[in-house]
Amino acid sequence: MTTTARAYAATSPTAPLVPTTVERRAVGANDVLIDIAYAGVCHSDIHTVRGEWGPIAYPQVVGHEIVGTVAEVGSNVTRHRVGDRVGVGCMVNSCRECVNCLAGMENYCLKVSTGTYASVDRDGTVTQGGYSTSIVVVEDFVLSVPESIPYEAAAPLLCAGITTYSPLSHWNAGPGKKVAVVGMGGLGHLAVKIAHAMGADVTVLSQTLGKQDDGLRFGADRYYVTSDASTFETLANEFDLIVNTVSAPVDLQQYLSLLRLDGTMVNVGAPAEPLPISVFGLMGNRRSYAASGIGSIAETQEMLDFCAENAIAPEIELIDAAQINEAYERVLKSDVRYRFVIDTATI
Amino acid sequence: MTTTARAYAATSPTAPLVPTTVERRAVGANDVLIDIAYAGVCHSDIHTVRGEWGPIAYPQVVGHEIVGTVAEVGSNVTRHRVGDRVGVGCMVNSCRECVNCLAGMENYCLKVSTGTYASVDRDGTVTQGGYSTSIVVVEDFVLSVPESIPYEAAAPLLCAGITTYSPLSHWNAGPGKKVAVVGMGGLGHLAVKIAHAMGADVTVLSQTLGKQDDGLRFGADRYYVTSDASTFETLANEFDLIVNTVSAPVDLQQYLSLLRLDGTMVNVGAPAEPLPISVFGLMGNRRSYAASGIGSIAETQEMLDFCAENAIAPEIELIDAAQINEAYERVLKSDVRYRFVIDTATI
Repeated sequence: MTTTARAYAATSPTAPLVPTTVERRAVGANDVLIDIAYAGVCHSDIHTVRGEWGPIAYPQVVGHEIVGTVAEVGSNVTRHRVGDRVGVGCMVNSCRECVNCLAGMENYCLKVSTGTYASVDRDGTVTQGGYSTSIVVVEDFVLSVPESIPYEAAAPLLCAGITTYSPLSHWNAGPGKKVAVVGMGGLGHLAVKIAHAMGADVTVLSQTLGKQDDGLRFGADRYYVTSDASTFETLANEFDLIVNTVSAPVDLQQYLSLLRLDGTMVNVGAPAEPLPISVFGLMGNRRSYAASGIGSIAETQEMLDFCAENAIAPEIELIDAAQINEAYERVLKSDVRYRFVIDTATI
Repeated sequence: MTTTARAYAATSPTAPLVPTTVERRAVGANDVLIDIAYAGVCHSDIHTVRGEWGPIAYPQVVGHEIVGTVAEVGSNVTRHRVGDRVGVGCMVNSCRECVNCLAGMENYCLKVSTGTYASVDRDGTVTQGGYSTSIVVVEDFVLSVPESIPYEAAAPLLCAGITTYSPLSHWNAGPGKKVAVVGMGGLGHLAVKIAHAMGADVTVLSQTLGKQDDGLRFGADRYYVTSDASTFETLANEFDLIVNTVSAPVDLQQYLSLLRLDGTMVNVGAPAEPLPISVFGLMGNRRSYAASGIGSIAETQEMLDFCAENAIAPEIELIDAAQINEAYERVLKSDVRYRFVIDTATI
């Protein structure tokens, strides 16, 4: 039996999001029905509904930072029980056959993992996301959310958290390592908290000093302004790792010059257009430029457990669903500290 | 007492190289005087004398693939003895104070290591390279050349050899790893031999099939043509490591798409202009793009010993000094298999 969920949906690239309902599929043998409690608002949601990442079908419900409680499980489900606090992030399935899926790296599925929204699911339907009162997801893509993470703040970990945790972990942020975080938004503020908890020396590189006090409070050791050219002289050859959370184009050569021997700059956001990169700039200090996309399911669970152990939670502004269109405008102006989360009881 | 060496020098960006003499400094306490036997011809030599990498002072002797015999040593010299077969590569000194020099990575000296030619040496003179009958170099930058490597073929190892060995070693080419070598010139043919000896599965990506037989004989497992677009479909997501020996601009997105999960593409040549790079292309498979510049002195010695143990030597065309201008024209047409080496007895 399907479940009718209340939701907020986009009906065109330009119209505001409006209340509606979506049908969630009947709970299959491997499925989990989740009563959604909170849904984070990611910039990707806005790009998607406005067609900025390509045309989509409407109506479309977005949201891929989801926490809630298990309401029902299929007969084969062993990982989750009714009443468990769980989460769903950016993907709800993958091909399970390619070399990356078989290696437990579903986020790099060669056939492209199934997005939590605006993707064609394995059953042919278009996925509908988390700005909604419930969702049905196969158990393998459902995370366990530790109760010690504040319920309303947990949602952004499912995208912003794993997107920054994964490169910090993969490129070994930790004691003795100097890490720079570019941008102090939803992703950046979590990158600071996580890198600090990992034991790294953390520097924020931000357009202004407006969030400096916050940055230092979140665990940054230093805070520099990127609009001041002297920053790039002061910090030349300094960092083992730069995590760039800014999707807008940046001058790669400026940032790469901050890397020490064998340092890596990792983009976790992607500008639409290619960026010019100087091979000479890479050759000094044998630098690398890379990009990282969310994280695997296993790594997402590891991240949630890490955040619980280290008392890391996103800074959020809790909103009612009716405030979503206003919230979008504020996201576009970077006027949020640091992530909007929808209380789905208000949908 | 200084030594007068016979040499071939450039006298302007456009004039042919001509015979001349250069004065080598008196052998200092830490110096080694080397009677040069053979000098390899690197494309960098041509770029330099023609002013393509910036204006230089003339006359200028180039050549940074040098092998010869120790003729005299300073009072403090312990590493080399008169009569030893030795080599000199792309650098003859470094600052010895920066974090990279202190870590034994002189090739990434933050104050820039002193080039074997066209650099200002620590004593203020302009360095003059290996198209010459002798050279004086501080012992720390003089390599021991195993006698089992054919004397006349050893020279190209000092630049082409270490330039390809270093990234293959650093990025762990070896059993179970799939390595692509882009370009089958002086560097590429050595990359194939070295990667094969390291135990990697080796694929050559070349503009034509003209050197296919050679490539397979040097140890390549497969040989593909880059002018055929289907090559990039066939080999998608295939390689752990791509070593790009081509200095001319390439379509990075095409080559990056060949990398499997956590694969790295490394440039060892550098086009003058920045290349466009797509972050989306990097994000699939968490790919990295990097560049590598020659190798440290310790690693160069390791490479020479590795080549001796594995019977690796460059393929060369031995020439008289008077043929150098003709050789330059042939290098520019990629008409050399695979490296010109000057018999300095003919200077």
